[in-house]
Amino acid sequence: MHGGDHGPRVTLAACRQFLEHHPDAHLLLVGLPDSLREWSHERTTVVAASEVVAMDDSVEVALRKKKDSSMRVAIQQVKSGAASAAVSAGNTGALMAIARYLLKTLDGIDRPAIATQMPNAQGGATTVLDLGANVDCSAEHLLQFAVMGSALVSVLQEGSPASVGLLNIGEEVIKGNEVIKKAGELLRSAANSGDLNFYGNVEGNDIFKGAVDIVVCDGFVGNVALKASEGVASMVVGGLKQEFKRNIFTKLAAIIAYPVLSALMKRMDYRRYNGAALLGLRGLVFKSHGSADALAFEQALNRAYDAARNNLLDRVRSRIAHAAPLLMPADAQPAPDAAAPIH
Amino acid sequence: MHGGDHGPRVTLAACRQFLEHHPDAHLLLVGLPDSLREWSHERTTVVAASEVVAMDDSVEVALRKKKDSSMRVAIQQVKSGAASAAVSAGNTGALMAIARYLLKTLDGIDRPAIATQMPNAQGGATTVLDLGANVDCSAEHLLQFAVMGSALVSVLQEGSPASVGLLNIGEEVIKGNEVIKKAGELLRSAANSGDLNFYGNVEGNDIFKGAVDIVVCDGFVGNVALKASEGVASMVVGGLKQEFKRNIFTKLAAIIAYPVLSALMKRMDYRRYNGAALLGLRGLVFKSHGSADALAFEQALNRAYDAARNNLLDRVRSRIAHAAPLLMPADAQPAPDAAAPIH
Repeated sequence: MHGGDHGPRVTLAACRQFLEHHPDAHLLLVGLPDSLREWSHERTTVVAASEVVAMDDSVEVALRKKKDSSMRVAIQQVKSGAASAAVSAGNTGALMAIARYLLKTLDGIDRPAIATQMPNAQGGATTVLDLGANVDCSAEHLLQFAVMGSALVSVLQEGSPASVGLLNIGEEVIKGNEVIKKAGELLRSAANSGDLNFYGNVEGNDIFKGAVDIVVCDGFVGNVALKASEGVASMVVGGLKQEFKRNIFTKLAAIIAYPVLSALMKRMDYRRYNGAALLGLRGLVFKSHGSADALAFEQALNRAYDAARNNLLDRVRSRIAHAAPLLMPADAQPAPDAAAPIH
Repeated sequence: MHGGDHGPRVTLAACRQFLEHHPDAHLLLVGLPDSLREWSHERTTVVAASEVVAMDDSVEVALRKKKDSSMRVAIQQVKSGAASAAVSAGNTGALMAIARYLLKTLDGIDRPAIATQMPNAQGGATTVLDLGANVDCSAEHLLQFAVMGSALVSVLQEGSPASVGLLNIGEEVIKGNEVIKKAGELLRSAANSGDLNFYGNVEGNDIFKGAVDIVVCDGFVGNVALKASEGVASMVVGGLKQEFKRNIFTKLAAIIAYPVLSALMKRMDYRRYNGAALLGLRGLVFKSHGSADALAFEQALNRAYDAARNNLLDRVRSRIAHAAPLLMPADAQPAPDAAAPIH
């Protein structure tokens, strides 16, 4: 309840909305008792924590010094079975490290991954993983991401099996470095054995074309692609505002064009897709963007709720088990501080 | 003259404009005699080639089978000293491979890199390299890119020494994989010895904020970032068009907002920044976007002209020599087919 740039004011407002929209849902609110004192709702339980992980705390501090942080207590609720899923808008690196430490990874998963959705030109969203949990990935890790991503999309969207693209620098099979080429082979094998709907290589622009449902990449590349795309979007929006403010005529034009521009903004609104999944853990954990407003944070709650209701964990587990023959043990666990913030 | 999606029609129109704007310039036009038959201009020399590298030719075919291609003959003009620089809108992988084979790399450079400019929110452009020539880079390669990029920016823009950012997944020094951390150390050393103006780590969005003049990354990451940003830009432009076409009112709004939108488009027009530099070779080679129109192709010619006039090659050479103590021999040359198209 304390994470993110806006703190409980925003997250509590989102919780109230969420409870109104989901009459069957029950929320555990974990946080400093002071900030939850005025909260009251029959379908909530307040769970006290004595401290808070700061946005700039190192993973080390979050993991080893703050043993009663709201983040840790929240994930503990998932571990104990008191909660079906945890949602946080806090420090991504700390969240991943604590989740991993407390919940452990699923059998067959070397490394958890962070999966998020990005709006695409089809009016839908493309799920991209990893977004920064793993800065160096083997081909086997990329296959694990593909399998987990397919399970995630299967609980979030109905319909035909989600298609998976491998992020590369060209569509041809011979493109990319050795890891990518080998990952391509593994993904083709997985497609042949019915574990995946593999589309082939995709390029950076295909994320936004909506050519595939899922784009798989290592966390370094995914993080750069996500932030670069946010950067372009901000530049365009900032440029529009500047141009429309230029003089009295452009201001008039702005008033007339406003409904059109706001329809566009709505369609491309990243807030609609807020709520990244930490996949590969023995429990459901979702990460909201740090700058989320109440609408965006509610989306993250919705995502966690859908994942829990639709047994995302079992789906990931069974898909990973099915693909197990392809998933040779890849390597040791990376250091927990390898995680990168995605906000 | 044959490369790109539009062929000689566009490139020849651009050449005519370029010659008008630069009364001192002389052009060598390399191509199939048939397509250059109707051309005439006193400050040009037509050089015949008997074949053309196709956009989908493999590097192998371009390099080994088409020994009299217009691309190869053009680069041969640079090697022989007949031309100061070559410009092509053709197949990027082939261009890099042929340029590298004929011209060789400069002393102290393991791998050439492709540098391009992307528009930023400051109204200027950020130079990014590498864009796809190298899919796996060592820390030393990244330092070489930084030094070469600084030389390039010094010939294209006046003023204070260009600042260099290292593309990473967070601003903190501890972020990133081992290669990136080591590259950060090398870049800091280079800054201390006066070889570079190193800003520190930057993230994907900083390319478009214009936080630094130059962003350094490996070719895989750079290629994905470039294409992802092009994807977002296309999605936004496509979305705007759709929204404005929705009904009679939005069409009216479009007419009124048109001057504002076109001012924005002009500011963010990628064409203004067309002309990627192939850096690190013993000769100047520039790559135009394959889909370039005449305006964009003329920009690529301008860039090559500025680079030649301002002795880019000598600047790169002397900067690399100065930074030599930091540039340990890194590794063997990569296979020529590691190059990726950037269009």
